[in-house]
Amino acid sequence: MEAFITDKKIVFAMVGLPARGKTYISQKIVCYLSWLGFKIRLFNIGSYRRQNYGTKECTAEFFNPENEQALEARKECAKLALRDLVGFLKDGGDIAVYDGTNTTQDRRKMVAEHLQSELGSHSLVWIESICTDQNIIDNNIRATKVSSPDYKEIDKETAISDFKRRIDQYSKIYQELSTDLDGEETSFIKLYNVTNKVIMNQITGYIESKLVSFLMNLHITPRSIYFARHGESVYNPDDRVGGDPDLSERGYAYLPRLRAFFNEELRAGRVGQTTKLLTSTLKRAILTANAIEVGVKPVSLKVLDELDAGVCNDLNYDQIANIYPQQFQARLKDKLNFRYPMGESYKDLIQRVEPLIFAIERSKDPVIVVGHRAVLRCIYGYFTRQQVEDVPHIDIPLSTVIKIDPKAYHNHEERFNLDVENPDQPESAQENV
Amino acid sequence: MEAFITDKKIVFAMVGLPARGKTYISQKIVCYLSWLGFKIRLFNIGSYRRQNYGTKECTAEFFNPENEQALEARKECAKLALRDLVGFLKDGGDIAVYDGTNTTQDRRKMVAEHLQSELGSHSLVWIESICTDQNIIDNNIRATKVSSPDYKEIDKETAISDFKRRIDQYSKIYQELSTDLDGEETSFIKLYNVTNKVIMNQITGYIESKLVSFLMNLHITPRSIYFARHGESVYNPDDRVGGDPDLSERGYAYLPRLRAFFNEELRAGRVGQTTKLLTSTLKRAILTANAIEVGVKPVSLKVLDELDAGVCNDLNYDQIANIYPQQFQARLKDKLNFRYPMGESYKDLIQRVEPLIFAIERSKDPVIVVGHRAVLRCIYGYFTRQQVEDVPHIDIPLSTVIKIDPKAYHNHEERFNLDVENPDQPESAQENV
Repeated sequence: MEAFITDKKIVFAMVGLPARGKTYISQKIVCYLSWLGFKIRLFNIGSYRRQNYGTKECTAEFFNPENEQALEARKECAKLALRDLVGFLKDGGDIAVYDGTNTTQDRRKMVAEHLQSELGSHSLVWIESICTDQNIIDNNIRATKVSSPDYKEIDKETAISDFKRRIDQYSKIYQELSTDLDGEETSFIKLYNVTNKVIMNQITGYIESKLVSFLMNLHITPRSIYFARHGESVYNPDDRVGGDPDLSERGYAYLPRLRAFFNEELRAGRVGQTTKLLTSTLKRAILTANAIEVGVKPVSLKVLDELDAGVCNDLNYDQIANIYPQQFQARLKDKLNFRYPMGESYKDLIQRVEPLIFAIERSKDPVIVVGHRAVLRCIYGYFTRQQVEDVPHIDIPLSTVIKIDPKAYHNHEERFNLDVENPDQPESAQENV
Repeated sequence: MEAFITDKKIVFAMVGLPARGKTYISQKIVCYLSWLGFKIRLFNIGSYRRQNYGTKECTAEFFNPENEQALEARKECAKLALRDLVGFLKDGGDIAVYDGTNTTQDRRKMVAEHLQSELGSHSLVWIESICTDQNIIDNNIRATKVSSPDYKEIDKETAISDFKRRIDQYSKIYQELSTDLDGEETSFIKLYNVTNKVIMNQITGYIESKLVSFLMNLHITPRSIYFARHGESVYNPDDRVGGDPDLSERGYAYLPRLRAFFNEELRAGRVGQTTKLLTSTLKRAILTANAIEVGVKPVSLKVLDELDAGVCNDLNYDQIANIYPQQFQARLKDKLNFRYPMGESYKDLIQRVEPLIFAIERSKDPVIVVGHRAVLRCIYGYFTRQQVEDVPHIDIPLSTVIKIDPKAYHNHEERFNLDVENPDQPESAQENV
């Protein structure tokens, strides 16, 4: 990170009762900032507890604040996570997320003092998730906690009631973040019912403020996100890049299969009239999006246009290697940063699609994105928490619909191969654009 | 603006007692978003009042809520401003800022209903500035209100006491923004003592959230910002662009004059050990920054490097015109968007320096930026509220220190020509990079 702009190591530390979406928010922070290229890592106190004490002993009783032995054990886990977090930052990390309940001022003070003595000048920002809507909490418990590693071998209803008792244990001692308790100078962000209402104290700094604007677009309403490339274009078989070609015969033949797939989703109620159907301004993508009949017209976005290959537009890879041998080599060496002469790089593309990421995050309705390989790599890479270096190499085959359901602990992903001609081999592994 | 990402017209409307920095914040919003390329305009109710009722009659009595005639007159001004605001948005504007006190729920309701009936689907975000620190208020009154057009012909102390009575008149009827009063669904941002504490309700959307992260970096502590180009390089006389050349003889001869200038600033206490001295990673800028002796070492930032001229690096304009005639023409036609092959455009540069803008805004200490022409055009363009199309044509001469003191109603700017050889003609008007 560059001095003056972001000269300090940053720790985002969560606060809140169980089942308030702390881990969901933590994961989102990591996936956003790592996608932007920062060295960031998540330290989840619960994982340390499970590692050190297993899951069987960790019933609600383990979280009773009057159970001193358990209290000590949990404090120990918090410290172990903190020790690793400090190690990561000292070892070249830029940003760390400390995911735990941190529900008492005492605990927060311990964390702040430890970071101060170990790191010296740094930026510590508390992020508190407050949820007053019992429906959200209940849904959260059912959707994530029951399937948490803590309840692997326990039946659902027992797990739910144990988990509710765990929340009660924490509630006894919970102290909300406040300037009175934690001091006027403490940096914190309080999120109410995800982001309906936000209170911030002493939040400043580039990354800190960028993160706030990101958090404001999050919600936890479940909805699916579909990604599909356009049908095969007349350029695809020849490995020609860019341009605005028509679909090939095979590409046109694919459209009814794509339509049938989404008709099925429509029948099942998974998409419908509120669905956002997005595509680029290029012919091959518009033709493909138009084949989808879920009750809405596609919206063409410039931001979804394919990576601009600049002077290499309409050329194939052999031609590029011949005409621009130096650039061709540079691209092989560093695909992420390679910028086509008069065109774009993957890094440029990530910047370009950032507003779209915010918009998709914000949408409480299903979203279908009909796009192009490179631009879909960037968007899909964000939603699947890829390291930025891996983004240019993500496999986004033709004739395949990728469906993602964002979840707290992992995204649920399904890939539907609609290529009846080659059901086992949707596409060559060739690395275009 | 692109559908789905930012498909709605946006109105940011201020709320707050007089002397709470509403106009300062409004101006900053306009200068930030217009610099990013949005069509944005400020509608200040006070200006409409002055235009329609002059300034002489507008003593504190005019703001007495029990003075019904004046109340009606002020309401009329609010409506006139609103009418023009709607006209601007209907006529292709993206974003409008409505700057007034809007201190009653009744008035806010009127504004919201008017916008709803005139614009239909749009995004209305209230921004309330709350100041509990009497020192800030007093400073604000002395620094800006006394010199406001309202008190052009009135002595200072009379102006101050009249203005304080005006605040009292507003205080009688002031209703802070709240979900109880204004409704759960009302979007608002409450800023306490500028941005020490921020409360947001129902804030979502790309521009809205981007704006929040911008606002969080603002403060009103006065401090100067200095801009200086490097001394003349060996490339400058030949019109060669980019590269990493040494200073010319004339460039070296300039350094003692630059040093003397800042020594004088140091003696006057305007810069010192807390000053941020920033420069690029290029030789000519570092040599220049090293000549400044204000008690701090220069910090080299990659983000301050000159616009990357790509394949044209180290060439002069005649060579560029010969070797890349097409690009040369494209640059002449649209300098803002022209991207050098394998290099950058001004638009790229604006994106690149945005984090630096946030960092300079955030700094409560003086900042000295020793940079290059194109990159300084972008930064200076932001601080002086230029339209983005004008940025590539801003005059940033060699051998000149530009000093800016950001103020609410206008920035105070001074230019110091340190070119003793050509005191009247600091530089040719040639348009490099």
